[in-house]
Amino acid sequence: MDYQQILETIQEQVRPLLSQGKVATYIPELSKVSPQHFGMAVYCLDGSSYTVGDAHQKFSTQSVTKLFALALAFEREGNAIWKRVGREPSGNPFNSLTQLEYERGVPRNPFINAGALVINDILAQRFVQADIAVLQFMRMLADELKIDFDREVAISEQKHAHRNNAIAHLMKDFGNLQNPVSTVIDSYCRQCSITMTCLELAKAGSFLANHGTIPWSGQKILDSSSAKRLNAVMLTCGTYDVAGDFAFRVGLPAKSGVGGGILAVVPGELAVCVWSPGLDPAGNSLAGVMALELFTTMTARSIF
Amino acid sequence: MDYQQILETIQEQVRPLLSQGKVATYIPELSKVSPQHFGMAVYCLDGSSYTVGDAHQKFSTQSVTKLFALALAFEREGNAIWKRVGREPSGNPFNSLTQLEYERGVPRNPFINAGALVINDILAQRFVQADIAVLQFMRMLADELKIDFDREVAISEQKHAHRNNAIAHLMKDFGNLQNPVSTVIDSYCRQCSITMTCLELAKAGSFLANHGTIPWSGQKILDSSSAKRLNAVMLTCGTYDVAGDFAFRVGLPAKSGVGGGILAVVPGELAVCVWSPGLDPAGNSLAGVMALELFTTMTARSIF
Amino acid sequence: MDYQQILETIQEQVRPLLSQGKVATYIPELSKVSPQHFGMAVYCLDGSSYTVGDAHQKFSTQSVTKLFALALAFEREGNAIWKRVGREPSGNPFNSLTQLEYERGVPRNPFINAGALVINDILAQRFVQADIAVLQFMRMLADELKIDFDREVAISEQKHAHRNNAIAHLMKDFGNLQNPVSTVIDSYCRQCSITMTCLELAKAGSFLANHGTIPWSGQKILDSSSAKRLNAVMLTCGTYDVAGDFAFRVGLPAKSGVGGGILAVVPGELAVCVWSPGLDPAGNSLAGVMALELFTTMTARSIF
Amino acid sequence: MDYQQILETIQEQVRPLLSQGKVATYIPELSKVSPQHFGMAVYCLDGSSYTVGDAHQKFSTQSVTKLFALALAFEREGNAIWKRVGREPSGNPFNSLTQLEYERGVPRNPFINAGALVINDILAQRFVQADIAVLQFMRMLADELKIDFDREVAISEQKHAHRNNAIAHLMKDFGNLQNPVSTVIDSYCRQCSITMTCLELAKAGSFLANHGTIPWSGQKILDSSSAKRLNAVMLTCGTYDVAGDFAFRVGLPAKSGVGGGILAVVPGELAVCVWSPGLDPAGNSLAGVMALELFTTMTARSIF
Repeated sequence: MDYQQILETIQEQVRPLLSQGKVATYIPELSKVSPQHFGMAVYCLDGSSYTVGDAHQKFSTQSVTKLFALALAFEREGNAIWKRVGREPSGNPFNSLTQLEYERGVPRNPFINAGALVINDILAQRFVQADIAVLQFMRMLADELKIDFDREVAISEQKHAHRNNAIAHLMKDFGNLQNPVSTVIDSYCRQCSITMTCLELAKAGSFLANHGTIPWSGQKILDSSSAKRLNAVMLTCGTYDVAGDFAFRVGLPAKSGVGGGILAVVPGELAVCVWSPGLDPAGNSLAGVMALELFTTMTARSIF
Repeated sequence: MDYQQILETIQEQVRPLLSQGKVATYIPELSKVSPQHFGMAVYCLDGSSYTVGDAHQKFSTQSVTKLFALALAFEREGNAIWKRVGREPSGNPFNSLTQLEYERGVPRNPFINAGALVINDILAQRFVQADIAVLQFMRMLADELKIDFDREVAISEQKHAHRNNAIAHLMKDFGNLQNPVSTVIDSYCRQCSITMTCLELAKAGSFLANHGTIPWSGQKILDSSSAKRLNAVMLTCGTYDVAGDFAFRVGLPAKSGVGGGILAVVPGELAVCVWSPGLDPAGNSLAGVMALELFTTMTARSIF
Repeated sequence: MDYQQILETIQEQVRPLLSQGKVATYIPELSKVSPQHFGMAVYCLDGSSYTVGDAHQKFSTQSVTKLFALALAFEREGNAIWKRVGREPSGNPFNSLTQLEYERGVPRNPFINAGALVINDILAQRFVQADIAVLQFMRMLADELKIDFDREVAISEQKHAHRNNAIAHLMKDFGNLQNPVSTVIDSYCRQCSITMTCLELAKAGSFLANHGTIPWSGQKILDSSSAKRLNAVMLTCGTYDVAGDFAFRVGLPAKSGVGGGILAVVPGELAVCVWSPGLDPAGNSLAGVMALELFTTMTARSIF
Repeated sequence: MDYQQILETIQEQVRPLLSQGKVATYIPELSKVSPQHFGMAVYCLDGSSYTVGDAHQKFSTQSVTKLFALALAFEREGNAIWKRVGREPSGNPFNSLTQLEYERGVPRNPFINAGALVINDILAQRFVQADIAVLQFMRMLADELKIDFDREVAISEQKHAHRNNAIAHLMKDFGNLQNPVSTVIDSYCRQCSITMTCLELAKAGSFLANHGTIPWSGQKILDSSSAKRLNAVMLTCGTYDVAGDFAFRVGLPAKSGVGGGILAVVPGELAVCVWSPGLDPAGNSLAGVMALELFTTMTARSIF
């Protein structure tokens, strides 16, 4: 089977799952999306691409942007970022503030909200506006200038950011936030509101499958070792509190978002992005995880 | 020995302790106070009073004001307040946010910061300004119109309120804060900045020793049962995370503050206030706790 | 109203509550007791006593024995015991092992299971058998030689002691247990199996209301200060995780057990014991707490 | 460079680290080993092998045996084991019992002690003696009948197993242990005492690099998918509380032990085992982790 056939088979097989996930409701804008959407795109290092379903439809990338913010900060600051954020899995979901308090304001990894806020703060020390820097980085990686924020989503996120405000103030109390809390929160909310398609995200993530170099332009973003290390962080921390289960089932470095998108990387070969808005209890796309599990089973492309 | 002799004996005995406590430093204004201060005042229900040392000097009452804010809220709202704040001791100091997160935004008691913020929020739903309501209540109870905020302390507290902001935002996230976070924080910081003398505080607290009625005016603030219940909350929750130890050593309902003041009640007899700025590791006045322990030993006036 | 009338009024008023509590079921022997039992006994320092209902029926004293074990250890070892066990309220029920692990094997107070095990270990270093020492102490205080263990309850407790074994091994790991784990567990389970009547318990506890001296014999068990301090520990730690609420509602030092008994002390006047097997969610007798609340309301005898 | 040259280069480069690690001291037998030992062995799927230093010296495999116990249980019981043990990283080291209590007796993964005890319990339901089953499995995989327990280490572990006893009793309390606590603890301690050489371990682990089939015999232990999944569990959970950091630095599935051994897998190519008794603060071999990091850098063989 070639990739196109595989994607079509997957689409068929996950259809019954579409009605089982729960669309995120913490902001009104996300709750309006139909759970029946499903799209998937593969972008290979040779430039070929394969898509199925709603792969060309824009969706809210949300936490998937944390991967690109991290890559940008890592590219600019190198290992210095690890003084302010860890790279260990986050453990229990019950204790987002508990853990942060215990570890004195140093987030466990760059993909939990606390860590993403620190990354945003790091970017805000170097760029005029962190969120715009991330947006431009993603536009460049996807070779698509029309990628943009969703203003209504951003405003809605800011209105419902009480927990993120609590996290930011706690880090500020521990001295791990340089910019004002409101600056970081606002920038973070805008960053999360970026909308993209599956194909755009797969293309944008392909440099991580290609030892840090953009495959279609040859531009080096990260050296080979750094790219591998980002993949490692994705594998151990990229899917909320079920990274172990995801590695067990799918076996690929990946980053998910509550908009229902998941971007995964097959080192040396391709990047793949799936989107389906219905989430499982851990906050990952229910059909999306199953689609990726089927993908690695059918292609035998797990990293293990 | 009469009370005057007892106070003088106590002053003598605690003198070596004055240099052992540590003055609070979390805001610059508090750190400037000399640890050598010591004052103590007894206010009896018959109107007689006894003082020693710096009993007539103003100091920053800080968390002692939480007692009066609670009394005011309890008087106005009755048992309805216990839907939004508990009345159990807070346990470990290490987990201020942990516990709040675990208990879904309902603070353990009205004397930890989270609980005092909720009380402030409750007052802000009934009064134009919660902090001014508390100030006027304390002025009335002490029969002293000149009691006031310390503007510099209040501003400094607001500047260093990152942790309190984190707590307030977390409660807002859980739906246990009605007013904007900034309103509650600002009001709370002003409330804590109220300055008073030992004698003023002892007089202001005397209604709690008198079944809820102001002894010098006969005005009923709380019914007898409610006053006893406030005393119970003071005993189990009034001295940060060492309420058990304080009950063991002193045996009186009391509320302490990081300014070094402690107000205690001997039901049916008197209120006593001690002030010494040097704190023990738990945040209570080091010499103050010892002074109260000596007081209950010499007068045999523990409630047990 | 005299005490007899008060007890009878209380019995009448709590009757509807008897069917609302839940009898303890963690060992089969306790689950067999009918929740309809209710007994109450007052023992005054002048030797007079008053009883109502099942006040002369034996029941499983369970954790009420922790009070007598503590008194015995405190009498023999004095303040040295506080190096091995704290005297602070225990906070959340969810974290019995969590807290013990965080505090490195030193239990919060002598009334949680961990603390009672340490007290048992302390007694086992001085007596041939800790449980028999406690039994004889209680026989002596109640002036009743027929008080004894319930062999079946003891054996059943030992069979279901997995959590207590976990606690004991953790303390052993931290070096806070001198005797073998099995010795301490077995002794503790026997101690908890002691059966007594309300009147016997009230009489046995009366020395704590009498400044440490047995009222009917004049024998001094503890000095006045130590007796008061035990009362303080009872007030802040004696009713599981709701000591604050109990102090608020009842306002007396007390120790409860899952057998449905509660022993309370009115300093300078009397000891009172209530028994009703139906428990509230916190593990205290549902009707018993209400009975004591009515008692302090009707007699105006709260310590506050 | 061929593997032999690479190993020799690594040995040279890690030499300065040998004196920086701390040998495990929780049992006397381990503390006697010199931290100057260093051995490393590569076993390729074609049967070729390469060794350096003390690669032929026996050492205490300790937690490395958990990998083989898990493989054996997984082979026999399949996915049923995941009902009794999770496969998520364990998070903070501070809360071994905390987490277990919060998650109601279900360990986070099979490589923390709690999880290894459950795996042992699962094996004890199927084999006469779980520890002997693991021993025979490892003998078979390494093709070496002389592999055996170290009786003194086993006895010493049993004597110092208070924390493991606490963990086992807590799981028993939650109903997640079928056999008696003492049976499971004794079996687990013997399992951990197995001594092997680097080369034996690399050979024994090579089936995990070979899609579940023993390369030198062709015997299928696990199907390809199951083998990959075990590798995923190793990557996310195999190196105590620093799995994220290990994945970042080394990028290979691995299992470490406090004896100083680490077994790692390069899927499709080889297994590699390093031994050096000096540990880093997380409990992994200090020189061993560095040796593996150098290995993946020099061979470019990270899975990412």
